[in-house]
Amino acid sequence: GFAKVDRQRQERTGFPEVVYGEGKTADEIIRIFRSLKEHSEVLLATRIDEEKGRKIVEVHDDCTFDERSGTVYKKKPLEDTEHYIAVVCAGTSDLAVAEEAAITAEVFGVRVERVYDVGVAGLHRLLGEIERIRAARVSIVVAGMEGALPSVVGGLVAHPVLAVPTSVGYGANFGGVSALLSMLNSCSSGISVVNIDNGFGAAYNAVMIEKMAGS
Amino acid sequence: GFAKVDRQRQERTGFPEVVYGEGKTADEIIRIFRSLKEHSEVLLATRIDEEKGRKIVEVHDDCTFDERSGTVYKKKPLEDTEHYIAVVCAGTSDLAVAEEAAITAEVFGVRVERVYDVGVAGLHRLLGEIERIRAARVSIVVAGMEGALPSVVGGLVAHPVLAVPTSVGYGANFGGVSALLSMLNSCSSGISVVNIDNGFGAAYNAVMIEKMAGS
Amino acid sequence: GFAKVDRQRQERTGFPEVVYGEGKTADEIIRIFRSLKEHSEVLLATRIDEEKGRKIVEVHDDCTFDERSGTVYKKKPLEDTEHYIAVVCAGTSDLAVAEEAAITAEVFGVRVERVYDVGVAGLHRLLGEIERIRAARVSIVVAGMEGALPSVVGGLVAHPVLAVPTSVGYGANFGGVSALLSMLNSCSSGISVVNIDNGFGAAYNAVMIEKMAGS
Amino acid sequence: GFAKVDRQRQERTGFPEVVYGEGKTADEIIRIFRSLKEHSEVLLATRIDEEKGRKIVEVHDDCTFDERSGTVYKKKPLEDTEHYIAVVCAGTSDLAVAEEAAITAEVFGVRVERVYDVGVAGLHRLLGEIERIRAARVSIVVAGMEGALPSVVGGLVAHPVLAVPTSVGYGANFGGVSALLSMLNSCSSGISVVNIDNGFGAAYNAVMIEKMAGS
Amino acid sequence: GFAKVDRQRQERTGFPEVVYGEGKTADEIIRIFRSLKEHSEVLLATRIDEEKGRKIVEVHDDCTFDERSGTVYKKKPLEDTEHYIAVVCAGTSDLAVAEEAAITAEVFGVRVERVYDVGVAGLHRLLGEIERIRAARVSIVVAGMEGALPSVVGGLVAHPVLAVPTSVGYGANFGGVSALLSMLNSCSSGISVVNIDNGFGAAYNAVMIEKMAGS
Amino acid sequence: GFAKVDRQRQERTGFPEVVYGEGKTADEIIRIFRSLKEHSEVLLATRIDEEKGRKIVEVHDDCTFDERSGTVYKKKPLEDTEHYIAVVCAGTSDLAVAEEAAITAEVFGVRVERVYDVGVAGLHRLLGEIERIRAARVSIVVAGMEGALPSVVGGLVAHPVLAVPTSVGYGANFGGVSALLSMLNSCSSGISVVNIDNGFGAAYNAVMIEKMAGS
Amino acid sequence: GFAKVDRQRQERTGFPEVVYGEGKTADEIIRIFRSLKEHSEVLLATRIDEEKGRKIVEVHDDCTFDERSGTVYKKKPLEDTEHYIAVVCAGTSDLAVAEEAAITAEVFGVRVERVYDVGVAGLHRLLGEIERIRAARVSIVVAGMEGALPSVVGGLVAHPVLAVPTSVGYGANFGGVSALLSMLNSCSSGISVVNIDNGFGAAYNAVMIEKMAGS
Amino acid sequence: GFAKVDRQRQERTGFPEVVYGEGKTADEIIRIFRSLKEHSEVLLATRIDEEKGRKIVEVHDDCTFDERSGTVYKKKPLEDTEHYIAVVCAGTSDLAVAEEAAITAEVFGVRVERVYDVGVAGLHRLLGEIERIRAARVSIVVAGMEGALPSVVGGLVAHPVLAVPTSVGYGANFGGVSALLSMLNSCSSGISVVNIDNGFGAAYNAVMIEKMAGS
Ligand SMILES: Nc1ncnc2c1ncn2[C@@H]1O[C@H](COP(=O)(O)O)[C@@H](O)[C@H]1O
Ligand SMILES: Nc1ncnc2c1ncn2[C@@H]1O[C@H](COP(=O)(O)O)[C@@H](O)[C@H]1O
Ligand SMILES: Nc1ncnc2c1ncn2[C@@H]1O[C@H](COP(=O)(O)O)[C@@H](O)[C@H]1O
Ligand SMILES: Nc1ncnc2c1ncn2[C@@H]1O[C@H](COP(=O)(O)O)[C@@H](O)[C@H]1O
Ligand SMILES: [Mg+2]
Ligand SMILES: [Mg+2]
Ligand SMILES: [Mg+2]
Ligand SMILES: [Mg+2]
Ligand SMILES: [Mg+2]
Ligand SMILES: [Mg+2]
Ligand SMILES: [Mg+2]
Ligand SMILES: [Mg+2]
Repeated sequence: GFAKVDRQRQERTGFPEVVYGEGKTADEIIRIFRSLKEHSEVLLATRIDEEKGRKIVEVHDDCTFDERSGTVYKKKPLEDTEHYIAVVCAGTSDLAVAEEAAITAEVFGVRVERVYDVGVAGLHRLLGEIERIRAARVSIVVAGMEGALPSVVGGLVAHPVLAVPTSVGYGANFGGVSALLSMLNSCSSGISVVNIDNGFGAAYNAVMIEKMAGS
Repeated sequence: GFAKVDRQRQERTGFPEVVYGEGKTADEIIRIFRSLKEHSEVLLATRIDEEKGRKIVEVHDDCTFDERSGTVYKKKPLEDTEHYIAVVCAGTSDLAVAEEAAITAEVFGVRVERVYDVGVAGLHRLLGEIERIRAARVSIVVAGMEGALPSVVGGLVAHPVLAVPTSVGYGANFGGVSALLSMLNSCSSGISVVNIDNGFGAAYNAVMIEKMAGS
Repeated sequence: GFAKVDRQRQERTGFPEVVYGEGKTADEIIRIFRSLKEHSEVLLATRIDEEKGRKIVEVHDDCTFDERSGTVYKKKPLEDTEHYIAVVCAGTSDLAVAEEAAITAEVFGVRVERVYDVGVAGLHRLLGEIERIRAARVSIVVAGMEGALPSVVGGLVAHPVLAVPTSVGYGANFGGVSALLSMLNSCSSGISVVNIDNGFGAAYNAVMIEKMAGS
Repeated sequence: GFAKVDRQRQERTGFPEVVYGEGKTADEIIRIFRSLKEHSEVLLATRIDEEKGRKIVEVHDDCTFDERSGTVYKKKPLEDTEHYIAVVCAGTSDLAVAEEAAITAEVFGVRVERVYDVGVAGLHRLLGEIERIRAARVSIVVAGMEGALPSVVGGLVAHPVLAVPTSVGYGANFGGVSALLSMLNSCSSGISVVNIDNGFGAAYNAVMIEKMAGS
Repeated sequence: GFAKVDRQRQERTGFPEVVYGEGKTADEIIRIFRSLKEHSEVLLATRIDEEKGRKIVEVHDDCTFDERSGTVYKKKPLEDTEHYIAVVCAGTSDLAVAEEAAITAEVFGVRVERVYDVGVAGLHRLLGEIERIRAARVSIVVAGMEGALPSVVGGLVAHPVLAVPTSVGYGANFGGVSALLSMLNSCSSGISVVNIDNGFGAAYNAVMIEKMAGS
Repeated sequence: GFAKVDRQRQERTGFPEVVYGEGKTADEIIRIFRSLKEHSEVLLATRIDEEKGRKIVEVHDDCTFDERSGTVYKKKPLEDTEHYIAVVCAGTSDLAVAEEAAITAEVFGVRVERVYDVGVAGLHRLLGEIERIRAARVSIVVAGMEGALPSVVGGLVAHPVLAVPTSVGYGANFGGVSALLSMLNSCSSGISVVNIDNGFGAAYNAVMIEKMAGS
Repeated sequence: GFAKVDRQRQERTGFPEVVYGEGKTADEIIRIFRSLKEHSEVLLATRIDEEKGRKIVEVHDDCTFDERSGTVYKKKPLEDTEHYIAVVCAGTSDLAVAEEAAITAEVFGVRVERVYDVGVAGLHRLLGEIERIRAARVSIVVAGMEGALPSVVGGLVAHPVLAVPTSVGYGANFGGVSALLSMLNSCSSGISVVNIDNGFGAAYNAVMIEKMAGS
Repeated sequence: GFAKVDRQRQERTGFPEVVYGEGKTADEIIRIFRSLKEHSEVLLATRIDEEKGRKIVEVHDDCTFDERSGTVYKKKPLEDTEHYIAVVCAGTSDLAVAEEAAITAEVFGVRVERVYDVGVAGLHRLLGEIERIRAARVSIVVAGMEGALPSVVGGLVAHPVLAVPTSVGYGANFGGVSALLSMLNSCSSGISVVNIDNGFGAAYNAVMIEKMAGS
């Protein structure tokens, strides 16, 4: 019977419900958070601008608003573990998306190592950090403009790489298309891609893989 | 020192070298296979047309040419296991890409369950097979035209979904763009995407995840 | 003679004139409404922002401004009937367009059943409502992002489906192109498509079909 | 229970199964036709090239191969009726798609009036035929190049118009994109659109509407 | 010698210099007008917003600011003549561009007949005005959305048609691309096209042709 | 009455009917030519490949097949006149389109001056021929690749320029899009544009203008 | 060892670090400038809007803010030399990008000759300045709209041309795509292209070439 | 006088005339070579397919046909020099374009170092060859698929990099667009870009720069 499909996927998977902030008012999000608190110790809303963010944390003062990534969240302390997801990006401009990914993973209960400022234009920086990336079980690699970083990282590590193109850049970047196409056409194996600026989606995938690998 | 980066990624990872057949002659592939045999019990070449395929298996008669998927391969028997990757697709037209994925995974030593003919236009077929998909550790979901299948599967399973858009269709499918965009914009979580028609790439990712999950 | 073509299509069809609000001032719309009232008991203007909307209903206080859908309208009570159009959508973000469609149909004198919050990522919700959709004579299915909902609905019902792509989403949705292409390439039969965000157009078509089917 | 969704949509709707010929061999189609004959008096396969077509009708000699539209079909005599679908197009180049639509509708048991050679560049021809179009219950309007015909017809009739863009043209027609965009952006109301060259899809929709209107 | 090319094209042609307002300040345009007045009785600046327009006519009070078309101009009285350019468009939304064309032609000394509100969705309006269009020596046909008007007009007149696509519309009009492609792919002969929203350019061409035809 | 629109535009204008060869068989064209000969001394068919061309002139041996331009035509001797259309292009690759334009104009009874091999990369060649172009009443300027020639010519002449983009080039020319966009965005005034590779359309417009200017 | 790659490329090349202003606050740039001053006599920040620019030069009053190009910089006096880079552009609208290029080159210590107002629509202006361009060792040619200027200049000089497309224009310029494609498809040899509006990048390349040529 | 512009650019620059083979017959190229031999010791024709190539070298037996790059050429021995251009690419598939570049540079009299098989997916190979690249005065970096190689090389060298995107790849590479956009958006400085597959153009630029640097 249809009972086969009627269980909420979110419940089965143990992932908390995450609020997509775009197109919702602060009040709506405040109410949703109130109701989510009945079942969940952690909370996350993404794509929240400054005005909404401030209003939400005024009411939910156990939550943090991170302006750069546009997230409001409540984490719980992570268990001590040697296993982690590496979140890798080039520089200041991609930090918003990288932090959306990192915070999402942490809210979902997974340790994150941030490896920032390692763009391909200065390869020595990436090579200086490569062991920290290699030791991860999954990497999220965030890049705008030419989006070359996932290809280079993918060739240096033996674990799955979630590639996140960003809309950072101007002119012929076409709002992230240049980075997106680079990542889809990567000559490195072991790379899969999510939507432009979708740090959340990359983290969701990475956490699934990480949890599957066990502790 | 630089020794840190000089080991072949392929060697470290235990993945056999795979030959990308496009732009190589039958003779070139025959020679490459000869040299690969020195180190590897399994063999795989992708994007091989009928003429090349026949020539290769004439010389390498321990290999099989699968015309539909355009692959030439030599597998070894899989270990007995309850764990598998589900390769899911809608119908006859996406089989070429689905089989490229399935054969790649098998050559890489992972069990595959094929769940074919389950397009979203006749949902009962998918729902009738959903438990077989749910029991997998990773799914590869292949779809052309509107590319909706990964979104629907992604909402019904709790494991990572590798989505493969295909160029199948006509008119406003623009050689696979319609399916690609659908998958990148999926409202289901846990989906990541590879290049149009890249069954190989999806399998590579899926095998990495599957192996990480252990036996 | 040319008399063959000189009758106003709107008059012949019995459809009231609808005002397209974009690029018209509040004052212009107020004046047009005044003149339309001479011939019509119902009124509708679409694509009206908040400022214009408030000004119009201040003067025409028998009209309602619905901010979410950007419409100003005056309906008359519907006749009691078992026949209806189903307006189906996934969630909060597509409500603006879904409501433009629903209100248009109601202003045109047709009963509407709203089936909202039934996105493909949680299929059980759609399946739980499917009988209410099946009982309609026409469905309008509104979806943004990957635009998969019309394909799934189309496979479950035996009546015509008008598909409306929305511009909801970000990144590689390209302002609604992803949903538009999905709908045009649907592998379900019985689906036709209108412009991105064109709830009005879908309702116009649906009402034509519904009225043709008779009471 | 799930029984709700497990009945074949084709069976419920009374529409015969139609074979999509692309990517299937003549032999496969011959076999499918053999099996379809067990349940159906009519038969239809679309997107069939000359070589395949000839092979199929050699075996199934009760079928007709229409080269221009790329269809193989077996109709049964239509009931006498004043109701019909108008299939409208401009000229020789769009005939392939127009005939795919017309034949599909006839195989599905609906009378068709063909109104060909009425392109907008010579308006008098369209105006000379307009009463024949107006008397239809639904129109299918097929156009390539600038795709203006559905807008003009839509303004002259009071019934639903299914618009079919074709890939006919060259240069900046981009394989049918010019006609597709014209139809999606039509300023006439009552027009909905199917994929480029999808005469079958338009007919499927039109027949649904026509049947709903009753006899 | 090079003297062959050193004469100013504008001077030779007798066309006054026209100021392209975008990216110029009000002050800059005021100064340019001052200098142009030394040689020219007429003046024209295009793409002028309200703020700039008001400032310019405050200083140059023999000039008129037309807000709808974004032009500031000074015409001189036209000679009495039976010859004219027809400027044709569908409705309120395309008026800005149509007026840019009409005013440009008048500033250049050519009589204009405005034939507005004749969109293809209500063909009787166009047919009711067709003799006024036919009597012109050149037509400028302005259309947004599906851009079908030039094709229809082109089929009804025997003189050159300058087609101007506009960015009017939403969704899949892609800022005027739909109308542009329609016009480039017109099945009517005698149509040539200028840039999206370029009423000025169409008028420049039309005036050249008109003047060549003599009085 | 409708009589207003029922006269054939071709007849009124005095332009002979031209056959668009694409999608017509040699036999069909042979028959059409036979029927056209009843009313017309001149004949023209465009977009004819070698095989069709040879077959047609075998039957119609008063016609010429020009392989480069893909035209079959029969001209009559031109009257002696100082007035002409200049057909201008850069080099060997654009000759096909330039000749389609030139032959069309000649079949329509207008004298043509061919100014070939004057690409912008070697400006002295263009400047050496500029007086011959200036003396024309209209120019047709054909260019592929970057499509700069019409902008340069347009700045040097005082008559209307019909710009024809060609699909000549490779890579980022995108089948003529690069040249098309160049021409639409020309900073020279007096330029209007026809479809990619549409030499016929440019000639049709140019002849209209030329004839209007009188002898 | 890896030491091979660990030297900063910027240091080796003697090029000062340039600050990319987009996405950085005025305060951040003020701090970066403070730290850069420890090692460098010259300073440059690009893509700075008016508000940020004013704040920066208030603190760093040895710097100049150039509003048109959006740069803040500190140059040192250039050595006396006959060698220079020509920066060439058409008119007022491209000046922002041209000046970004010119100022960057000067900050990097290279003499610049500005050759402005030489668009292809008035070729005599370009030809009047051509010797000044020819005498340069490298040219940077900046153009929006149809982007034809680099092709024309490239054909007249014997040194490398760096082509910079700008986003100047409207309609079918698609934010600079028209100029970009023109430059990539140039039929002149010796032209290479940088991103839309990237005056900085062109200058960086030009300075590299100029310095290589020696004094 | 105009004498200023009438000297052939090719003659002034000392670059031999190069034949663009596309659209020319073998016979035409044979004749052109015959005439070029009167003035030039070296010869080059590009974009020559196998059939044409064989015919040309049958007549001009002092020429070599290189099938992979599609070139026919006659070089003269290079002078002994430590200076060279590096031509860098990833692998077998990009060799055609890389060789077009390398052969062009050699025909123009410049020494070339080929650094092939150094794709970013296996970074150790590139790093193992980096000193050979660094020692060049200019690099030509050829890459298809994601086109990341120029960004990585650009960050490791201090000389100008000419980036050549290739059409190698499938699916979302869109015939080279992915690589092209990557290169235009490179975060490394000192990179400029030529058309997709334009090895010739990159070499032309590189040789200009190399010759300028002197011996
Ligand atoms: N169908 C495919 N699509 C994308 N990449 C592939 C495919 N088949 C093989 N590859 C990759 O291509 C590499 C071999 O390329 P090559 O050395 O050119 O044969 C393999 O190691 C794979 O990573
Ligand atoms: N939201 C809408 N989208 C598309 N067309 C519309 C919309 N609202 C109204 N219309 C059409 O626009 C026509 C009126 O346009 P106007 O005369 O400009 O107000 C109506 O008759 C409708 O056919
Ligand atoms: N709306 C317009 N669109 C395109 N070109 C225009 C427009 N208005 C003026 N122009 C052209 O721009 C030139 C003046 O440009 P500028 O010197 O920048 O003011 C005029 O000579 C016209 O050719
Ligand atoms: N306008 C510009 N466009 C592209 N790249 C730039 C521009 N201005 C500076 N850059 C580059 O950006 C680098 C500094 O980036 P950041 O560290 O983010 O300030 C510089 O070293 C330059 O290579
Ligand atoms: Mg990897
Ligand atoms: Mg999932
Ligand atoms: Mg259906
Ligand atoms: Mg209608
Ligand atoms: Mg006409
Ligand atoms: Mg001109
Ligand atoms: Mg040059
Ligand atoms: Mg560099």
